[in-house]
Amino acid sequence: MTETTLCRTFQTAPAGVPRDDSAKYLRSGLTADGFAAPDWLVPDLEDGTAPDMKEEALDNVCDLLPEYGDEFAGEIWPRVEWAYDSEPTRERGVDQIETIAESVGEHVDGVVVPKVGRLEDVKAAESAVAAAARESGTDLGLSVIVESAAARSDLRDIAAFGQESRLTALVFGPVDYTAELGGREIGERPTWPGLYEELSNEASANGLLAIGGPFDRLFRERAGVTFYNGDAYADHVEREARVGLDGSWALHPNQTAQANRIHLPTESELRTSVKKIEAFTEAKDTGTGAVAIDGQMVDEATLKNFQNTVDTVQTVHAAHETQTRDRYDDDLLDRALAVAE
Amino acid sequence: MTETTLCRTFQTAPAGVPRDDSAKYLRSGLTADGFAAPDWLVPDLEDGTAPDMKEEALDNVCDLLPEYGDEFAGEIWPRVEWAYDSEPTRERGVDQIETIAESVGEHVDGVVVPKVGRLEDVKAAESAVAAAARESGTDLGLSVIVESAAARSDLRDIAAFGQESRLTALVFGPVDYTAELGGREIGERPTWPGLYEELSNEASANGLLAIGGPFDRLFRERAGVTFYNGDAYADHVEREARVGLDGSWALHPNQTAQANRIHLPTESELRTSVKKIEAFTEAKDTGTGAVAIDGQMVDEATLKNFQNTVDTVQTVHAAHETQTRDRYDDDLLDRALAVAE
Amino acid sequence: MTETTLCRTFQTAPAGVPRDDSAKYLRSGLTADGFAAPDWLVPDLEDGTAPDMKEEALDNVCDLLPEYGDEFAGEIWPRVEWAYDSEPTRERGVDQIETIAESVGEHVDGVVVPKVGRLEDVKAAESAVAAAARESGTDLGLSVIVESAAARSDLRDIAAFGQESRLTALVFGPVDYTAELGGREIGERPTWPGLYEELSNEASANGLLAIGGPFDRLFRERAGVTFYNGDAYADHVEREARVGLDGSWALHPNQTAQANRIHLPTESELRTSVKKIEAFTEAKDTGTGAVAIDGQMVDEATLKNFQNTVDTVQTVHAAHETQTRDRYDDDLLDRALAVAE
Repeated sequence: MTETTLCRTFQTAPAGVPRDDSAKYLRSGLTADGFAAPDWLVPDLEDGTAPDMKEEALDNVCDLLPEYGDEFAGEIWPRVEWAYDSEPTRERGVDQIETIAESVGEHVDGVVVPKVGRLEDVKAAESAVAAAARESGTDLGLSVIVESAAARSDLRDIAAFGQESRLTALVFGPVDYTAELGGREIGERPTWPGLYEELSNEASANGLLAIGGPFDRLFRERAGVTFYNGDAYADHVEREARVGLDGSWALHPNQTAQANRIHLPTESELRTSVKKIEAFTEAKDTGTGAVAIDGQMVDEATLKNFQNTVDTVQTVHAAHETQTRDRYDDDLLDRALAVAE
Repeated sequence: MTETTLCRTFQTAPAGVPRDDSAKYLRSGLTADGFAAPDWLVPDLEDGTAPDMKEEALDNVCDLLPEYGDEFAGEIWPRVEWAYDSEPTRERGVDQIETIAESVGEHVDGVVVPKVGRLEDVKAAESAVAAAARESGTDLGLSVIVESAAARSDLRDIAAFGQESRLTALVFGPVDYTAELGGREIGERPTWPGLYEELSNEASANGLLAIGGPFDRLFRERAGVTFYNGDAYADHVEREARVGLDGSWALHPNQTAQANRIHLPTESELRTSVKKIEAFTEAKDTGTGAVAIDGQMVDEATLKNFQNTVDTVQTVHAAHETQTRDRYDDDLLDRALAVAE
Repeated sequence: MTETTLCRTFQTAPAGVPRDDSAKYLRSGLTADGFAAPDWLVPDLEDGTAPDMKEEALDNVCDLLPEYGDEFAGEIWPRVEWAYDSEPTRERGVDQIETIAESVGEHVDGVVVPKVGRLEDVKAAESAVAAAARESGTDLGLSVIVESAAARSDLRDIAAFGQESRLTALVFGPVDYTAELGGREIGERPTWPGLYEELSNEASANGLLAIGGPFDRLFRERAGVTFYNGDAYADHVEREARVGLDGSWALHPNQTAQANRIHLPTESELRTSVKKIEAFTEAKDTGTGAVAIDGQMVDEATLKNFQNTVDTVQTVHAAHETQTRDRYDDDLLDRALAVAE
């Protein structure tokens, strides 16, 4: 398990589909490159895979990860079955966790457990992962999908549990969540801004990653032509980035390519940040605590936001230099890498 | 007490008004029919009734319920006096609860207690209702109005108390709430979206109903003519339905007629849901876990939202067949009733 | 320490700046008058003052407060250094608190402690203030700035601690907060509406003041001319007033002049409130509990909102009669002062 906490993109790929090559989407995710390669690939054994394909899907995970895992630049986090309100489902999940740990434990970074309920249920999932890791001698993280009313009710305690456990990321699951609350699409869908704030806050308070929810309107139709719904997805990801989520969920390589870019600062964002850090550093040397730069009062607090921008660029640069070289001109990138924390 | 949890409309009617017939509004609520009949009628002994009319109002409740209660298709939940910060008010409330239980306990489904404070205050209200129910040999529920800063602060614990008590519904009281927080109407009023999310979440996490707050701008004036403010109320109810509230508060038969319809899926919503359930069921039989239908990725999670739509229609159909027959064409209704859960 | 809880404006002034007169902004704040005089002046020893000016800044506070403090109509609350994640910073903060209490304790109403973390950290700050007050024989309040994920996570408990301590106000710090959560400005900045609701609620539930965060876009440029960004700041303050915040943060005398006015009801707001209180009082005398006035259903709950308007006017009138005389015509002001609570 690499220790990076970079997860701009959390791309689920159904691990078994009724095609000639039932591993088509899984293979496609493992071999994507450039901005289309997800930071986290999530082979999906849960809702993306039909009941009678579950076994074949698990076989695909066990077959393909040894073949492609080492080449894949990001992390691999299979999603298993789980449901706080169904014991048989949890039992299947435990079996899947054990199989994954034994067969391909060295190729995965952790498992994603969906539909968790209250804190006790998250602890049960964590115990299952811990036991499987111990038995297989591997190191596995746990990420959970917050998509029940019970999990949101316990969100503060669940996140605090991350301080003392292998819990790594809190992921939002808006579709199940909306169904649990009985939300309806009337003109527009509920967007749960309060939950987003709380998810971002509790993840930050406990050193966890916060990841957004899937956007399922992949395509739209106008005047008889159906096309990729790229504006709506970008708006969705921007909304998530604005409130401090670390990454977004992708269901398609196009979504991954967009979310990887949106969660990387724009050229203009980076230029402004570097400029203000440099100007503030200079002002501080002359005894000024707060200084107006281009009409904005800048002080130590403002500076942290600019520093965040630079930090993200430095992290992505370390992991995917082609992406940062592609996005920024050389001079700006050099200045960003030179800025002291 | 019927066991239905259907409360699309929570209509308050002042139980005593200074008219020749002081029970005018109460009688009108009890005899309304079609979409103008509320799912819950709430004879109001609190703010809707003036101090010197309280006794006559209580007499009206005791007189009219035996006469009209059996015919009334919905539930009846009188609102008594209560205030977390006034002991004399709570004492009057306890007296009213006792009188209602003794005199007309078999005609009411429960009582609505307003202005509750922290969890301890809700427990005190519950004890009063439990004692009155025991003494009178009736079965009475409790619904509370969340309209103090203290109640919102304790909302998670109050809702959890619903797991072990007769607490049935959490109702929002925006007018008192806004006054407590010192909110102001500047251009527009505060709408408390965070509270709405939390109310919907905690109600769902604990099996309670969540009911919205009253909309008091009943009428508006333009160019010298005053008319029913129907668009603004419908917008308000749609906003509540979107985040998963089970029902909305009505102050007028027109509001009831609108809210009953908005909390019932539209013909187009039902048609889409039935179609996607049918298509997904067919796809699953061929081994597909997620399938794109009309540009939307549909899986088990998405399905639950469509199932909610069908469930609501089935519940309303069981209680008010004339409403579902009025709204949907026969073929669609038959398909909706035939969809397996 | 005066017992007023009036804080429409919380104006920070850097206590030491690299100018010929390093106390320029502090002196300016202490001698402002009319609507430009803040209800609370906050001499800033933290982010507004550069590291090598901290000592001179503290000297300025100790020199100027005895000279101007008695004349200044509002309260004085110096902001010291503090950070939940830096012990050296907290030690400097404790030293500053002690110096302020000993030297000018009788001229200040309390201290503002920024960057607090969880409840334990707030308790540590409170102990430091309590000890300094005891040693110096003065009475000092504590206000904290909520600007970490940890503080928001513990906000309910921190506010409840206000019931049993000298904690007086909860102030929002959006710049540090956004940096902690990793929020980004994409088109617009995150505005944290959920946090605002919670801050307003928990302050009201525990008898504390809730104060908004600074707006740092003081100036903007268009077509080559740079000017005071007055519309954007007014919108910001109106948004805070709408959800019940007691006051707003000001960084500039223009901001103070605007926020003092926005947190004082408009002439039209006061006229409507007085009219509806008078009309409702009359209606109640005739036995009506709820009455439609200009299309709005008015009852005891609605009345509290109108009473809030009148209360604010009465409080400001007592403290700053020139402001109320300036804003309202004499007849309206007399009616407002005559309305019984």
